Amino acid sequence: MTDSIKHVAITGGTHGNELTGVHLVKHWQSHPIEVKRSSFSTELHLTNPKANKEVRRYIDQDLNRQFNIHDLNNNELAGYEQQRAKSLNKLLGPKENPRVDFVIDMHTTTANMGMSLIFNTDDPLLVGMAFYIKQHMPHAALFYNPSERLEDNFLTSMGRLNGFLIEVGPIAQGLLNYQVYSETQKAVLHALDYLELKNTGQALDLPTQMPGYKFTQKTPLPENERGEISAMVHPNLQDKDYHAIHPGDPLFITLAGETIVYEGESTVYGAFINEAAYYDQHIGLSFMEKIDITLRDSNL
Amino acid sequence: MTDSIKHVAITGGTHGNELTGVHLVKHWQSHPIEVKRSSFSTELHLTNPKANKEVRRYIDQDLNRQFNIHDLNNNELAGYEQQRAKSLNKLLGPKENPRVDFVIDMHTTTANMGMSLIFNTDDPLLVGMAFYIKQHMPHAALFYNPSERLEDNFLTSMGRLNGFLIEVGPIAQGLLNYQVYSETQKAVLHALDYLELKNTGQALDLPTQMPGYKFTQKTPLPENERGEISAMVHPNLQDKDYHAIHPGDPLFITLAGETIVYEGESTVYGAFINEAAYYDQHIGLSFMEKIDITLRDSNL
Repeated sequence: MTDSIKHVAITGGTHGNELTGVHLVKHWQSHPIEVKRSSFSTELHLTNPKANKEVRRYIDQDLNRQFNIHDLNNNELAGYEQQRAKSLNKLLGPKENPRVDFVIDMHTTTANMGMSLIFNTDDPLLVGMAFYIKQHMPHAALFYNPSERLEDNFLTSMGRLNGFLIEVGPIAQGLLNYQVYSETQKAVLHALDYLELKNTGQALDLPTQMPGYKFTQKTPLPENERGEISAMVHPNLQDKDYHAIHPGDPLFITLAGETIVYEGESTVYGAFINEAAYYDQHIGLSFMEKIDITLRDSNL
Repeated sequence: MTDSIKHVAITGGTHGNELTGVHLVKHWQSHPIEVKRSSFSTELHLTNPKANKEVRRYIDQDLNRQFNIHDLNNNELAGYEQQRAKSLNKLLGPKENPRVDFVIDMHTTTANMGMSLIFNTDDPLLVGMAFYIKQHMPHAALFYNPSERLEDNFLTSMGRLNGFLIEVGPIAQGLLNYQVYSETQKAVLHALDYLELKNTGQALDLPTQMPGYKFTQKTPLPENERGEISAMVHPNLQDKDYHAIHPGDPLFITLAGETIVYEGESTVYGAFINEAAYYDQHIGLSFMEKIDITLRDSNL
């Protein structure tokens, strides 16, 4: 196969306070057999050690927004994570022609998103991986967020074929939860199994279509006249990631207890509802649309 | 009454990433009528503004461990929170003879502790307040952690009669959840109502005994030979705060999936199970004993 995968990177701790990926990398470093497959090499990386040591999302900038080609090539961007991105560009890249075929980056969220598989392209290898994992973990949500690989600023875009972000929640920052840990572990191992099956030409029996969600926009938290957060996620919406939000449904509730409703005209679906990491930007949730995702025939 | 309450301080943001108390203080600053009572003054304080701005538990030291009399009088302790404690000693104290009669400090936890009322003395005024709130919020847990006021290092010990810590969870750090916010709000308002009733000599009809828990010890997370966390809270124990832990019950599970059991000889009860803020000290949970708490007759 011309597109065969030779080098896969599994990364954790890109956000330093998301401990699940950090401890999975440490576990696999001492149990490498679990991630070893015959047809490709698997490498393990802790991508943001300083932020991880301080149990903070980042030191200077969100590392997972530093990987677009212009920023990687801009030497004036010299913050800690901007430098980390350049180091990772050397380690995994260069972005224009990466050494690594595929990056699987492990994240967690305070939102009730369960097992969410986030991918940025409709390439059949990526979509097939999402479908394969969902076949084995039917509760997984497929989260499609299309982007152009060189312009994409996520770490996953460092893979030659773009990559795969595994986002599991709800879990608070700065701790471990066995359910989240073992779910993430299972999803990564399914991803490696899938690549092994693809590489070795095995039959996969994947459906041609599966339901999923496509990111549309981020929705801000209400602010007062001083620019401070003046409302929070409405209790009817809390933990309702991937549920429908109809026009007139409650979105937020003010500190004084007044409900603020969704004033859009079409039904949307929520994700990243009440994600702590988005409070600095006063973002309350993401809106998604429900879509059918198609697996193109990679042999055509 | 010789013990009548004249000045009550309600404090929030002592841990800068626990946003519930911060936003309740802001809410009450713009709606002061809610916390106004006829027989005493209520003051509102954000106690750790710099940590709050950075959405971190603390800048240099945990502020809620800085209030013992020796540390307050030790001018060599000059970290940010050590200085904040000295400022609060001037504002609310001095500790030896405080201006403020009572401090109600609002906290949150990542543990599933629901509405927990933490108090450090068997003084009938404190115990009566806990009983009064539990009468109105029967799901509240009474958490007795006896200490000597001058030696106590919690902010609540800055009140003349010692004080009251309201701890609500589960909630991740760095975000708001309306249920946690409104529960905390209700508990504080019940506390103020209680003080008003006591001050004005109203009949309270409190029971003489209620069930509760007494702190016994903190229990460490397992570590590997390099001193790193090697296990997490067992899924059977996660979210089971205030449930019984019997000898042989699972406590932890290693990164490789091996269960570690409780090897003590007597039944204990868990609290602060998987509290993110205790990971830096590698603490997994607190052990408690179940007790009956007695309300002494304050007129004897």
